[in-house]
Amino acid sequence: MLNQTNVKLGKVRSAIRELFEYGKKRKAEIGEENVFDFSLGNPSVPAPEEVKSELMRLVSQSDPVFLHGYTSAQGDYSVRKALSDSVNSRFGTRLTADSLYMTCGAAASLTITLNALVNVGDEVITFAPFFPEYSVFSAHAGAKLVAVKSDPLTFQPDLAAFQSALSEKTKAVIINSPNNPSGVVYSAHTVQALADILREHEKKTGNAVYLVSDEPYRELVFDDCTQVPYIMNHYARSIVCYSYSKSLSLPGERIGYIAVNNEMEEFGEVYAGICGAGRALGYVCAPNLFQQLVKAVEGRTADISVYKRNRDILCGALTEYGYTVVKPDGAFYLFVRALEDDAEKFAEKAREYELLLVPSNSFGVKGYVRISYCVDTAMIERALPAFRKLAASYKS
Amino acid sequence: MLNQTNVKLGKVRSAIRELFEYGKKRKAEIGEENVFDFSLGNPSVPAPEEVKSELMRLVSQSDPVFLHGYTSAQGDYSVRKALSDSVNSRFGTRLTADSLYMTCGAAASLTITLNALVNVGDEVITFAPFFPEYSVFSAHAGAKLVAVKSDPLTFQPDLAAFQSALSEKTKAVIINSPNNPSGVVYSAHTVQALADILREHEKKTGNAVYLVSDEPYRELVFDDCTQVPYIMNHYARSIVCYSYSKSLSLPGERIGYIAVNNEMEEFGEVYAGICGAGRALGYVCAPNLFQQLVKAVEGRTADISVYKRNRDILCGALTEYGYTVVKPDGAFYLFVRALEDDAEKFAEKAREYELLLVPSNSFGVKGYVRISYCVDTAMIERALPAFRKLAASYKS
Repeated sequence: MLNQTNVKLGKVRSAIRELFEYGKKRKAEIGEENVFDFSLGNPSVPAPEEVKSELMRLVSQSDPVFLHGYTSAQGDYSVRKALSDSVNSRFGTRLTADSLYMTCGAAASLTITLNALVNVGDEVITFAPFFPEYSVFSAHAGAKLVAVKSDPLTFQPDLAAFQSALSEKTKAVIINSPNNPSGVVYSAHTVQALADILREHEKKTGNAVYLVSDEPYRELVFDDCTQVPYIMNHYARSIVCYSYSKSLSLPGERIGYIAVNNEMEEFGEVYAGICGAGRALGYVCAPNLFQQLVKAVEGRTADISVYKRNRDILCGALTEYGYTVVKPDGAFYLFVRALEDDAEKFAEKAREYELLLVPSNSFGVKGYVRISYCVDTAMIERALPAFRKLAASYKS
Repeated sequence: MLNQTNVKLGKVRSAIRELFEYGKKRKAEIGEENVFDFSLGNPSVPAPEEVKSELMRLVSQSDPVFLHGYTSAQGDYSVRKALSDSVNSRFGTRLTADSLYMTCGAAASLTITLNALVNVGDEVITFAPFFPEYSVFSAHAGAKLVAVKSDPLTFQPDLAAFQSALSEKTKAVIINSPNNPSGVVYSAHTVQALADILREHEKKTGNAVYLVSDEPYRELVFDDCTQVPYIMNHYARSIVCYSYSKSLSLPGERIGYIAVNNEMEEFGEVYAGICGAGRALGYVCAPNLFQQLVKAVEGRTADISVYKRNRDILCGALTEYGYTVVKPDGAFYLFVRALEDDAEKFAEKAREYELLLVPSNSFGVKGYVRISYCVDTAMIERALPAFRKLAASYKS
């Protein structure tokens, strides 16, 4: 008898992957340019030119025994020093190199963090809509994921619902802002309110609860007035799971870090737990070439103006056609109200117009579809008539 | 309350790391050239020239959106196709691209495999001496690691002891050949005997037992007559965990694969379990640049003649000085009988001569030290007088 949990996980494709596979087949049938595939969150903008030039420099000029050698499990010291300095200068924190732990991307950051924090039977809270793999990661660590609803107008967490979801078993709260799939950025007011509620809960129960921020989309905000609050400035027991997948368009290279707030009382224990969990999960170190790379290009991003343009075109057109869209702050997702109650049926209807949209059910909310606009602008322009016809079909 | 298992794991350094850290301090005190550090299994030979040229070619000539983009969770199809073809041509197997799953190196291959196979309470058998992290990986997957002794002369597994260690709870058997730390290659006779015993046990109990081969050292054998048997030719329920860390001197880049024997009855279930376990542990895909690289350089190795020379020098000299060494078939380790019963005390004594040797206790056997000879040949030559004096100190 194999491990049936993992066998099942391996057999069931996510709804997003299913749609993507359908898209591949459909493109083969009717031509690439006639299918409007908004299914995947896969950066369409190339890595910045500096990524290429720095990779060339590192490979041609470094000692290969150093460049491709093991780093310590936490990551190369000079890399962690440079990245913690960067965080400090941007957010006023006082992290040291030893507050950071380099990882193979955001998913690894989350699984390592959860395995450090969680004991079997604990609960992890997140806010719907949420990235579906949070359930998988929590379950493997031994915890139950508890989804708390958001405000149906703003998609900010529902604070009253959060308060009642907290229990004796709550060990951690995961937030994801800019959010996949809603594109919403949690405001400073929201983050402060979450922190206040957590502190009150801690005082009442005597239990430590950790705030974990999943931040692959931090750099992807398009309006100067939009600030993504840094949770360490609001809550001591905070852990940031960062990834360069989207900011540098390097999703396949798996590079990111965990930053543990060194102002929490039990910092040493938490950091040790992260080192131990990394070891137990088989993460020996993050890929060294890409550790050196992110040190060299820290602060650069791919040309995210493309995403801003895509957002503006889509958002303007869809509103004009009569769709209701959630105010799009960042990431590269647009969350659109389905034109009938059942989002799955609406997504099916959209497929008749060759529009591939992900129904919101797998993100833990009903009645929406997610549009990933990390695609060619030209495809968006070709898709607009289809969106118009889809809307019209509901009016007749 | 954090997860105390992982907190403890993160706090306790392995014996090998402890010794390495001591060595760093000692070098600062008395000079790099006066410390003979044989602690780490970190390749000292640079990656082959083709690694540099192929990395330069890939980075300069590929579309960055493809090169750094997500691959499927199993790995890029063309990479898996090329590597499975290579395995087939060398070992007469009939693997397909879909028998392989690309991983972030051997540790990831093992944790993913164990999490696919194991249910809580199962047992995993291995043979002492063994790589200490096997305990950590098995424990995280929910299994108890059962260490079976080896023949004290040949360090081949003790077949009778293996037979009695098998139980109703046995789910998997891990072998590691060429072996860390003994350097021994398990003979075709050994592997066939293990397979026969397993088949008999399966028949008796009705339970499936998987043979898992941890193969980071497969290419590191130095005598033409030494063959490392391919387990798929001996046993249907077999899984190979391969890594390029040592063969290509890329330990920090984390690239390897799991090959599942597609001739086992429940192949589809096992492969699905591996996909699911990879997902649950947070492995989204193996680093894409290095996936493309190993496809391009498959069959190449670093200049392992350096290791052969090191082995021959050390082995000859140590035997001459009166040490008893285990016949060194491969890897880059020499397993040497301690000159007193207590290997820890012997290693301490060796430190007086600035020789850093790892006592065998943490590998699950007593009375030996491990010498990692993946070091500069010049350091070995400088160390020989110290080895001679150490031996002499036991004669007086």
